[in-house]
Amino acid sequence: MQLGVIGLGRMGQIVVTRVVEAGHEVVAFDLSAEAVATAADAGATPAESVADLADRLGDDKRIWLMVPAGEAVDATLEELAPHLDSDDVVVDGGNSHFEKSVRRAEETTAAYLDCGTSGGPAGAELGFSLMVGGPQWAYDEMTPVFDAVATGPDGHDRMGPAGSGHYVKMVHNGVEYALMQAYGEGFELLANGRYDLDLESVAKTWNNGAVIRSWLLELCEEAFREEGSDLGDVADHVSGGSTGTWTVQEALRQEVPVPLIYQALAERFGSRDEARFSRRLANRLRYGFGRHEVVREEE
Amino acid sequence: MQLGVIGLGRMGQIVVTRVVEAGHEVVAFDLSAEAVATAADAGATPAESVADLADRLGDDKRIWLMVPAGEAVDATLEELAPHLDSDDVVVDGGNSHFEKSVRRAEETTAAYLDCGTSGGPAGAELGFSLMVGGPQWAYDEMTPVFDAVATGPDGHDRMGPAGSGHYVKMVHNGVEYALMQAYGEGFELLANGRYDLDLESVAKTWNNGAVIRSWLLELCEEAFREEGSDLGDVADHVSGGSTGTWTVQEALRQEVPVPLIYQALAERFGSRDEARFSRRLANRLRYGFGRHEVVREEE
Amino acid sequence: MQLGVIGLGRMGQIVVTRVVEAGHEVVAFDLSAEAVATAADAGATPAESVADLADRLGDDKRIWLMVPAGEAVDATLEELAPHLDSDDVVVDGGNSHFEKSVRRAEETTAAYLDCGTSGGPAGAELGFSLMVGGPQWAYDEMTPVFDAVATGPDGHDRMGPAGSGHYVKMVHNGVEYALMQAYGEGFELLANGRYDLDLESVAKTWNNGAVIRSWLLELCEEAFREEGSDLGDVADHVSGGSTGTWTVQEALRQEVPVPLIYQALAERFGSRDEARFSRRLANRLRYGFGRHEVVREEE
Amino acid sequence: MQLGVIGLGRMGQIVVTRVVEAGHEVVAFDLSAEAVATAADAGATPAESVADLADRLGDDKRIWLMVPAGEAVDATLEELAPHLDSDDVVVDGGNSHFEKSVRRAEETTAAYLDCGTSGGPAGAELGFSLMVGGPQWAYDEMTPVFDAVATGPDGHDRMGPAGSGHYVKMVHNGVEYALMQAYGEGFELLANGRYDLDLESVAKTWNNGAVIRSWLLELCEEAFREEGSDLGDVADHVSGGSTGTWTVQEALRQEVPVPLIYQALAERFGSRDEARFSRRLANRLRYGFGRHEVVREEE
Repeated sequence: MQLGVIGLGRMGQIVVTRVVEAGHEVVAFDLSAEAVATAADAGATPAESVADLADRLGDDKRIWLMVPAGEAVDATLEELAPHLDSDDVVVDGGNSHFEKSVRRAEETTAAYLDCGTSGGPAGAELGFSLMVGGPQWAYDEMTPVFDAVATGPDGHDRMGPAGSGHYVKMVHNGVEYALMQAYGEGFELLANGRYDLDLESVAKTWNNGAVIRSWLLELCEEAFREEGSDLGDVADHVSGGSTGTWTVQEALRQEVPVPLIYQALAERFGSRDEARFSRRLANRLRYGFGRHEVVREEE
Repeated sequence: MQLGVIGLGRMGQIVVTRVVEAGHEVVAFDLSAEAVATAADAGATPAESVADLADRLGDDKRIWLMVPAGEAVDATLEELAPHLDSDDVVVDGGNSHFEKSVRRAEETTAAYLDCGTSGGPAGAELGFSLMVGGPQWAYDEMTPVFDAVATGPDGHDRMGPAGSGHYVKMVHNGVEYALMQAYGEGFELLANGRYDLDLESVAKTWNNGAVIRSWLLELCEEAFREEGSDLGDVADHVSGGSTGTWTVQEALRQEVPVPLIYQALAERFGSRDEARFSRRLANRLRYGFGRHEVVREEE
Repeated sequence: MQLGVIGLGRMGQIVVTRVVEAGHEVVAFDLSAEAVATAADAGATPAESVADLADRLGDDKRIWLMVPAGEAVDATLEELAPHLDSDDVVVDGGNSHFEKSVRRAEETTAAYLDCGTSGGPAGAELGFSLMVGGPQWAYDEMTPVFDAVATGPDGHDRMGPAGSGHYVKMVHNGVEYALMQAYGEGFELLANGRYDLDLESVAKTWNNGAVIRSWLLELCEEAFREEGSDLGDVADHVSGGSTGTWTVQEALRQEVPVPLIYQALAERFGSRDEARFSRRLANRLRYGFGRHEVVREEE
Repeated sequence: MQLGVIGLGRMGQIVVTRVVEAGHEVVAFDLSAEAVATAADAGATPAESVADLADRLGDDKRIWLMVPAGEAVDATLEELAPHLDSDDVVVDGGNSHFEKSVRRAEETTAAYLDCGTSGGPAGAELGFSLMVGGPQWAYDEMTPVFDAVATGPDGHDRMGPAGSGHYVKMVHNGVEYALMQAYGEGFELLANGRYDLDLESVAKTWNNGAVIRSWLLELCEEAFREEGSDLGDVADHVSGGSTGTWTVQEALRQEVPVPLIYQALAERFGSRDEARFSRRLANRLRYGFGRHEVVREEE
């Protein structure tokens, strides 16, 4: 089949490559001519504009958006709008908030699929996990493409109606924060504990048969191999946090307790704050009631 | 080589079977004659007592204990003591507290290896992850056995001196509690969230390529397949908790924050308490300051 | 001075009574004729409608709204609008979200003061704590009324511009959740601990000189006196949660970690959920990796 | 009545002063001659040694220990032992672990009262809160002294048998950690929030009538008055933690969830750790799965 891909960053190029390699025809566009050239090298037909891409696809357009979540999605949809009708299918493969996907599905003439995409750059070889929301017929139509982009037929499924793909992906990311922090706590205890351990060896041994083996633990193993058991100069500063924040916000709305996910997110916030006010106040209060010496910052 | 195995419960039988299948000779003993018979069926030489087992092993004894953590280990070591000398090696493959393993290593004439064993019954086919503490020479001597019991040469390693194997296993279990609770929070949000989802499909899709894929997530997938997306009649009651408690206790001693592991443990405690006193007090206090109606238990 | 009070529930009646007792003139209105009659008994001039109340106040109107947060505030402001000019002052003494107060301050012709009110029914005798946001001149104008409604001149202050009063009140309530849960944890441990304690005696002894003495602890003492050390039939069900949820949402926006406030809120959510899904999954997973028996709900 | 006081640090001197001022006779000893002289200035009879103090007390000795928790208590009791019989009463007013108090009560010939003491230096004027464990008759005998040292008759009570006084004090301190952190979270949000607030004014307004008013909040008010709304150079470093650790350890033993107390303790640990390993690993893992840039420490 024929697929238009708009947005040719790292993830978009992987989509192009995997779909081309699966024997499909790809028309590719990006604002960067260089990115379009890269896609062309991988076997895609270059397009000069969104309109040009739409023209080249003919009837029953199948289009995959891999642009940054937020305004770029709306801008692209607006440009696409004149070229779409109800037989067309648009996939948003980015990390959009599910409520925006619901709105976009309502506003778009074409069938709209929100597609949570997980796996990162490693997905280039292995394929991704794709969580898809939207009309069943559109999902069925896109199955050959999903088979190619995902790890295979088991690596994608329709979660439910509009928004459900990005909803499940949002929760996936919340869980991801908590898993990372959970492994982190274990390794922090080992790094500060009673034995002088080779943490790469610990992670490797665990990855071979232990209950907590996982892909994230393989990444821990890799991190210790490359950085050492003390993680070298890796800083205590965790960036990001938007999808984790969305997960906690949704959990507040649903009144579902998610203390581990919350704490993992709070650790990120804490890592970016030089001196936590709450602890500075506790320091001072201990003087107030117990005349314990106040620790002061050095000049 | 030749190995004596004492303790022939589910895990001990797996050790027997895997070591026999690797071409080694096994002498097996358990207080249950039936368990000894099962081991014999699997190819082990049955022993009638600890003393008999020791006799059958001759010089340079290699003995694997797979008895319940606690008094059973000490009782077995006491019975073994007269038969051991410094060329012998004893492995404790159970879930002993690392401080007890340090003490036993000091008290035992033989070289003593504490071996954290992870993988559960699934290890019968796949082999276990083995985290070993104790003298290097003893670890080297036991390598053929470890190769057989573990998933292979990568599935075992020497962590460090006495106690380090059970120390690393303790932390493994603490992380395990947190991972389980983290997945649980994600699925709880999905189960109570905006979409009517097939959680087996969610777990399956995640297991194929998503960042949070893991063996525990495969077990989630299996649970939803067998119990349904609502988990049927599975109760809100999580048993166990000793190794998680040990992990938190050690983290307190090392002054390492482990809030996710702690919370996962606290959830277990909470699951066993019909009515949490702290929340009953909060319920009553809201009347105290705001005249909010107190919710009372029905007769 | 002269004050119009709209909304004569429990809190509104306290405002009326305290302002009348301080020697001011009060015009009072509520949709309930009975509530208006009660206010009249307390010395207020009854009004028959919002318009009537506005007419009776003449120029330079000073009006206190004590209606439920949400639509009732907007509806009342809409009714008041034709009667207001820029020399008038309207106070919202309810638990409105600060962002709504900012919007209302912009939309209202009169000066608008958002006034966080804390102290509950006990404030009838002691007076309230009032956290006020809005123009300085309007705050100054209202000072005689604030002196009367608050515990005295120290019981009220201008926090800053529009919204800041309700902002500080929102955070107050978040802290309140955490304090209640903190006391609850302590008493839960004592109730389940090694000694058979009289918790009223514990609370009373603490309230007399201990570091953790507080008004909430006095309410704990009262609760144990009235319900017994086992809290009798008080249920594990904590209602409410909106201001705590707002606090956590704002903390997410500001990227400030508030794990204690979050956990206190999560305990409320948990108290309303018969069987926590996350723990049911953990129960089942323990079978998955360890063949631990699954606890099932009884028929 | 007559009281011997051993240990004349800040807290011991307060005991001496308050008991003397209540009209009782005090014999005082400390290893520091200067401290003994201070007590003598306050009206106590100086003793030259523990034996001398015992001699001066005659029959039916009443002795208050205010020495540092730990070995100093045992050393003092050992010195006292030859001088004690079963009609005597010894009070340990320090922060001993309750299990040690149970042991000491068993080993001491005299009646032994473990007395949790709260209130800090402010207790000099106001008196302390005293939580007492041990025999009823001994508690009754000591009542005049407790009346003097405490805020008054309501400021002390017998909690139960040996150890219960220090048990209740331990839990008091655990709650104290959580209350401090709860206020800290609220003020941290206000300090980083949408308004430029005078935190002394916030605390003062809350202390006058708000639900969360307390002595700790008065100490917050004092802290902001003395340090400013930004807490000046007060460092993010909270010392101490032993009684909070004991509380969490006991809660683990009793299987009672105390997430707020735990988290408050964990914040102390975190405040002393320059760079949290768990967060450094999370930083690195984000590169592993998403090629997010790793933040490195600057040279």
